[in-house]
Amino acid sequence: MVRFVNVHNLGRWAVDTGIEPLLRDLTTEMEAQFRRWPLFDKTPRVGSHSEHGVIELMPTSDGVTYGFKCVNGHPINSARGLQTVTAFGALSDVDTGYPILLSEMTLLTGLRTAATSAMAAKLLAPADATTMAMIGAGAQSEFQALAFRANLGINTLRIFDVDPAAMEKFERNATALGFDVTLCTGVEDAISGSQIITTCTADKKNATIVTDEMIRRTHPETRTTGVHINAIGGDCPGKTELDIELVKRASVFVEYPEQTFIEGEIQSLPHDWPITELWQVLTGEATGRSSNAEITIFDSVGFAIEDFTALTFLNDRLTGTDYYDEIDLVAEPVDPKNLFGLLPTKQPAVVG
Amino acid sequence: MVRFVNVHNLGRWAVDTGIEPLLRDLTTEMEAQFRRWPLFDKTPRVGSHSEHGVIELMPTSDGVTYGFKCVNGHPINSARGLQTVTAFGALSDVDTGYPILLSEMTLLTGLRTAATSAMAAKLLAPADATTMAMIGAGAQSEFQALAFRANLGINTLRIFDVDPAAMEKFERNATALGFDVTLCTGVEDAISGSQIITTCTADKKNATIVTDEMIRRTHPETRTTGVHINAIGGDCPGKTELDIELVKRASVFVEYPEQTFIEGEIQSLPHDWPITELWQVLTGEATGRSSNAEITIFDSVGFAIEDFTALTFLNDRLTGTDYYDEIDLVAEPVDPKNLFGLLPTKQPAVVG
Repeated sequence: MVRFVNVHNLGRWAVDTGIEPLLRDLTTEMEAQFRRWPLFDKTPRVGSHSEHGVIELMPTSDGVTYGFKCVNGHPINSARGLQTVTAFGALSDVDTGYPILLSEMTLLTGLRTAATSAMAAKLLAPADATTMAMIGAGAQSEFQALAFRANLGINTLRIFDVDPAAMEKFERNATALGFDVTLCTGVEDAISGSQIITTCTADKKNATIVTDEMIRRTHPETRTTGVHINAIGGDCPGKTELDIELVKRASVFVEYPEQTFIEGEIQSLPHDWPITELWQVLTGEATGRSSNAEITIFDSVGFAIEDFTALTFLNDRLTGTDYYDEIDLVAEPVDPKNLFGLLPTKQPAVVG
Repeated sequence: MVRFVNVHNLGRWAVDTGIEPLLRDLTTEMEAQFRRWPLFDKTPRVGSHSEHGVIELMPTSDGVTYGFKCVNGHPINSARGLQTVTAFGALSDVDTGYPILLSEMTLLTGLRTAATSAMAAKLLAPADATTMAMIGAGAQSEFQALAFRANLGINTLRIFDVDPAAMEKFERNATALGFDVTLCTGVEDAISGSQIITTCTADKKNATIVTDEMIRRTHPETRTTGVHINAIGGDCPGKTELDIELVKRASVFVEYPEQTFIEGEIQSLPHDWPITELWQVLTGEATGRSSNAEITIFDSVGFAIEDFTALTFLNDRLTGTDYYDEIDLVAEPVDPKNLFGLLPTKQPAVVG
């Protein structure tokens, strides 16, 4: 039998664990998995693009466990009352090839994306950061806020979204969670006085959410404290959030260059543009933030190892709990060569 | 809610429908989908290879529906009482990106592989074929036999497997199904007098199951009736079943050249080797069997469009039946931007 975690159970597990403790532990686990980066079987995700969005498969393996996620990205969806991103995924045992876990991953992707952002920010954010600007108050925003508080102690948020209802939704949720929230009048207002900027918007087009001029005005080079930009929303070809002039003068950190040069903020730059791989900062092979005044960008697009980490983390914690059901997903005949014999005995009349 | 078809329900559906009527209808559906070949979004499958096997993802889309299968191939498994191949898969709606069906696909792969073989044989087998040799009596063998009887009227089978227990298992099943079965002493014995040869073995290595010399002896060129070889087992790099000299003098038909030149019997041949795409025979753009004496080979490796066809065929037939459950796989918050609000209300104490 295969374990199955549905939306209801994933939510129960997350809330019973406590979202912040969970995000802290998941970030620690993410760091441990990123340090093992070279041993993973890595491939850029396989996307099927259509008019309104994309459906992608994101597989990886550490040689012991195989995992993949099936995820869609349909920016048009929220206008019709649907999720922009939905996902589900599975783990299989590499030795036998048999699946072991199937899980909803819409909520789990929210958690893993936030944990990955927090992992990067722990390495890259200015040491004295207290305030985060959040551009975009969509489905991912509360998870980001909680991951940054759980891992970096950030409790002051300056939020802007072109959709006032989304901002109000965020304010309602975040205030109830004890955050100090300021609703801002625009992007520049939000990033003023913020040492961390999270951009998480969903337009499937090249949008310049944060311009170089805005950063020059709000974070002049004469300041001793730079800024860390956690750029989440630019994650497929033709979809970016940052002014390329800003990207060019920043230090850019990525998950998997082969994918980020196709999908990330750096998609218009030559493939030999200097970037740093996040896993190398974790292992000490590369430097994270090198000066207080530096502008760092985590050009996040999401990579299969993050989903693998979330799924294996979840699976380990399921044992002995009632947060999963067992489903009959794999045919298991007594004689493996007699798959046919597994069929119910009521056979049609022989036609000779 | 997403439809879920488990192993038990897939088996019930297949048996209640009748395996042969189902295989006849699925073959007809496969033909219809192959005729639409150019409109599918096609990519070679994405495999993760390990010591004992491979786990693969096989996605495709027709622009309306997206489907993928996750399948393993572990030849070592049958020796340890496990299935060589297990699979599951899903369909999603391209417009919204939401999943609509999740299904077991171990049994369904057995059915779709058999239907695809029968589709090819309808185009390629000698017109007067009455007898099929089957080399390999594993999990796929009964499905093949039933698909060939349902679609081509083949009722006489000559079987050989290196594992006597597998042969006996096949004889028991096939005799109960009304087939005329002869257990053979070797490959050459089995293919003597057979107009169709199905090879379906599972070794993950280059094996020469059928040699050119065997075919020259059993099917001399002076004969007016040639032979059609339905080569199923050679389906990944380093895994073949046919003598390359035999392949070279035969007319070779494939599903998707980009994949077959990597995985199929033709993997050692140059990529400009003349082959014919099966879908073009179906649309009339290419010729199938061109003479009675010809040796034709269907170099089958399995392609995503076949799984898509099986899943959409199944999904269409589920409506109004009890062959599926509904599962809570997709988070559906009332406000799509308030994914966080979907979490149960029992929140941990605010940590301020």
